[in-house]
Amino acid sequence: MHSTQSLTPFFQPHSIAIIGATDNPKKIGYAITKNILENPKGNYKISLVSYKKGEILGHLAVSSILDLNQTIDLAIVLVPARFVESIISECIKKKVKSIIIVTAGFGEMGISGKNVQNRIAKQVHEANIRLIGPNCVGIQNISFGLNASFIQKPLAGGISMITQSGSIGAACIWEFNAQDMGMAKFTNLGNAADVQFYEILEYYSSDPETQVIAIYLESLQEGRQFYEMLQKVTRKKPVIILKGGTSTKGMQAAQSHTGSLSSNFSVFQAMVHQAGGILCDTLDEFITALKTFSYVPLPQGAKIAVVTGSGGSSVLFSDYAERFGFHFAIFSPELEKELGSHLIELVKMENPLDMIASADENTFYHVTKTLLASPEIDIIVPCSLVPPFLEQEPQSHMRGVLHAWQETGQKKPIIPLMVYGEMFPELQTLRRTHRFPLFFTPKEAATAVKYLLIRFKYLNRISRH
Amino acid sequence: MHSTQSLTPFFQPHSIAIIGATDNPKKIGYAITKNILENPKGNYKISLVSYKKGEILGHLAVSSILDLNQTIDLAIVLVPARFVESIISECIKKKVKSIIIVTAGFGEMGISGKNVQNRIAKQVHEANIRLIGPNCVGIQNISFGLNASFIQKPLAGGISMITQSGSIGAACIWEFNAQDMGMAKFTNLGNAADVQFYEILEYYSSDPETQVIAIYLESLQEGRQFYEMLQKVTRKKPVIILKGGTSTKGMQAAQSHTGSLSSNFSVFQAMVHQAGGILCDTLDEFITALKTFSYVPLPQGAKIAVVTGSGGSSVLFSDYAERFGFHFAIFSPELEKELGSHLIELVKMENPLDMIASADENTFYHVTKTLLASPEIDIIVPCSLVPPFLEQEPQSHMRGVLHAWQETGQKKPIIPLMVYGEMFPELQTLRRTHRFPLFFTPKEAATAVKYLLIRFKYLNRISRH
Repeated sequence: MHSTQSLTPFFQPHSIAIIGATDNPKKIGYAITKNILENPKGNYKISLVSYKKGEILGHLAVSSILDLNQTIDLAIVLVPARFVESIISECIKKKVKSIIIVTAGFGEMGISGKNVQNRIAKQVHEANIRLIGPNCVGIQNISFGLNASFIQKPLAGGISMITQSGSIGAACIWEFNAQDMGMAKFTNLGNAADVQFYEILEYYSSDPETQVIAIYLESLQEGRQFYEMLQKVTRKKPVIILKGGTSTKGMQAAQSHTGSLSSNFSVFQAMVHQAGGILCDTLDEFITALKTFSYVPLPQGAKIAVVTGSGGSSVLFSDYAERFGFHFAIFSPELEKELGSHLIELVKMENPLDMIASADENTFYHVTKTLLASPEIDIIVPCSLVPPFLEQEPQSHMRGVLHAWQETGQKKPIIPLMVYGEMFPELQTLRRTHRFPLFFTPKEAATAVKYLLIRFKYLNRISRH
Repeated sequence: MHSTQSLTPFFQPHSIAIIGATDNPKKIGYAITKNILENPKGNYKISLVSYKKGEILGHLAVSSILDLNQTIDLAIVLVPARFVESIISECIKKKVKSIIIVTAGFGEMGISGKNVQNRIAKQVHEANIRLIGPNCVGIQNISFGLNASFIQKPLAGGISMITQSGSIGAACIWEFNAQDMGMAKFTNLGNAADVQFYEILEYYSSDPETQVIAIYLESLQEGRQFYEMLQKVTRKKPVIILKGGTSTKGMQAAQSHTGSLSSNFSVFQAMVHQAGGILCDTLDEFITALKTFSYVPLPQGAKIAVVTGSGGSSVLFSDYAERFGFHFAIFSPELEKELGSHLIELVKMENPLDMIASADENTFYHVTKTLLASPEIDIIVPCSLVPPFLEQEPQSHMRGVLHAWQETGQKKPIIPLMVYGEMFPELQTLRRTHRFPLFFTPKEAATAVKYLLIRFKYLNRISRH
């Protein structure tokens, strides 16, 4: 077993060599060369290596890494697959500390590619060098200013991701950006010839910037170590997992994709649950889970209150709530009286509390605040929709909810449901400026509550042992 | 039983009386008054009725509908609940042809409200007048230029909706707008004291502008008639259904919402399947189904091909595909050869066909066109993501797919999957300008294929009887 320190040169390199650097904008190597050259914090020195030598994007390239004088923390290999083995030999001679092989065409191509991949893994292992890839888009460390990948940079924040698929990683970053969710670290493992999921998981676990860990995986080579690590890490941080290749057909596709056999899904499922991880069924649920733990504090209990200006939304929310086994609080006469003082007579004192269409910003403010202040309630789900009438502003209801939340110290989880509100800039501003959480369908809001309760109950269970 | 002609005065009125018209922008009646006054096609005459009399929004109001000289096709009632019964008596005296009661505070409030509602329903029935509502946002007929509701107007198109919940209807219209999906008719039934789902369903069935029918319902008063009508209508048009109140808790919420008891869900489910309707589990699936039938032609068989530039997306698509029981085609040697001529050597000839990250617009164009032209394939799922590298345009892959589709006459269904691409204006333009379908998660694309196959198999089954 390696220590997590062996991963530091990947995420905090002070010198990087890009082997196969290019200024040809049609090559993937160009994007990664440009991204590394950006170096906004000036944290690392960059050396370019290219068989062409000469100047590349304003930097003089040498023809071999062995021609460099300085030591190299991280070597990034972009050359075509047939040259990779000899480049790795040079990296070993140069005693680089870590290597990312971006190049594809190894284990995912079948037996002969797998053999080359295994040979490379054995060589670097013997040389005590760590290797990420091959067949990956690279890694990122946002606060360090490092984008050692050919994909786009996320916003800064608390999500750290390990993904087997580069494209799923890139797609998630688009969606994170769209929902103002920021990242700390990003790692695409690709074929995972050396560095494994459980190692990055451990690294993220002790990373102070990482608040929630996201894992997309298709196959595991080290199931036992992963399970044991997951069990440790979930005590500290929520770990959200999406698994590709859960079906026979999906497994075949996964094998072509990253060259590894997918494990039996029901075994995997049981393992994740046992270890306290949160396993999602879809990409949307994966985003929802990460959003929930990024924006919302954990509940101190499981009693839910729903307040709504949109009857249909709370009906649908209630359907999923029952399916997920939630407990709706029964309001005490005192709480009913307090709520009633802010509501018109037509409103029936029930939970879900349907305040009907006349509820405005003020109503949402007072009712949400009453519920946030009440010891009878642990989680509040305020439902609304962007009002298409009365010349109301799209964000007015949720502004009322936000003020109530702010004035009570943002201590209790709220899951504001704004049905199909994602396209309204006014709501996006509320989210961006005040870290106000927003959920967009009844199922999404119910799923968010479900994940909060899973985490709450898990932490409760382990604290009793 | 009434004939569907009894519904014509709702959707094509030549004279409308707004009873309770107001210019107070804080009242819901203001929004509906303004929407009706807009009258962009000049298809109807408008009379305003208000106890205040005088001028409202530039129109002279009378104090009673009985003061009007002309006949009234459609009376819209906005007055407070306690005045509604006497207003209805006046409408009956005036012999209006149809009435919409927007006002809430009837059956959804409990026994006494239910009694008033029943009395009103009996009176209008005896007078041979049809009634929509009470407790509804109103109706719309887009091509007629009629927005007799207090919610926003959709784009023009082929979806016609019947919804029990006004807010779910309004939320759907936001999402339809966001995804360039247009509507023909909109009806919110609210408490459904008189006009029932099956009647609007029949009306839409014979409406030449309606291509696909959307139903959101929480409860059915006339289950038998609905079933029989559904069975007839699904032979002509796809009918997409979302049911709220599928759980005990949801049923209670529904009862507060529209005052009617929700029926047993498993009975309902079996009934819809038997009658050839498409029952969705979530609001997102409801939108996906409507999008699919709005944008995509029906397949002539069930053989699916997946082409991808994003390995992870097709792995996840394959997982749902297997869960839904799809058949992936096995490419013949001839088709493999033809596909291979457009691909680099690294690509393995399989289905899903992973063209790896180097696939560009041209690759997508040629490969999709080959599959569209092949009798071996009935449905094509081109997967991509917005490329975050190589300075590619967000829409380039899908532009390749579009050209292939256009050049083959748009006869075969394509389900283009662009993972988390909804926020890119370039993709939106492709959709708006060319009616190009776009799906945004692997689950959504798989769900779209599922609905196409349900419809294909249902039409096959009934054509054999």
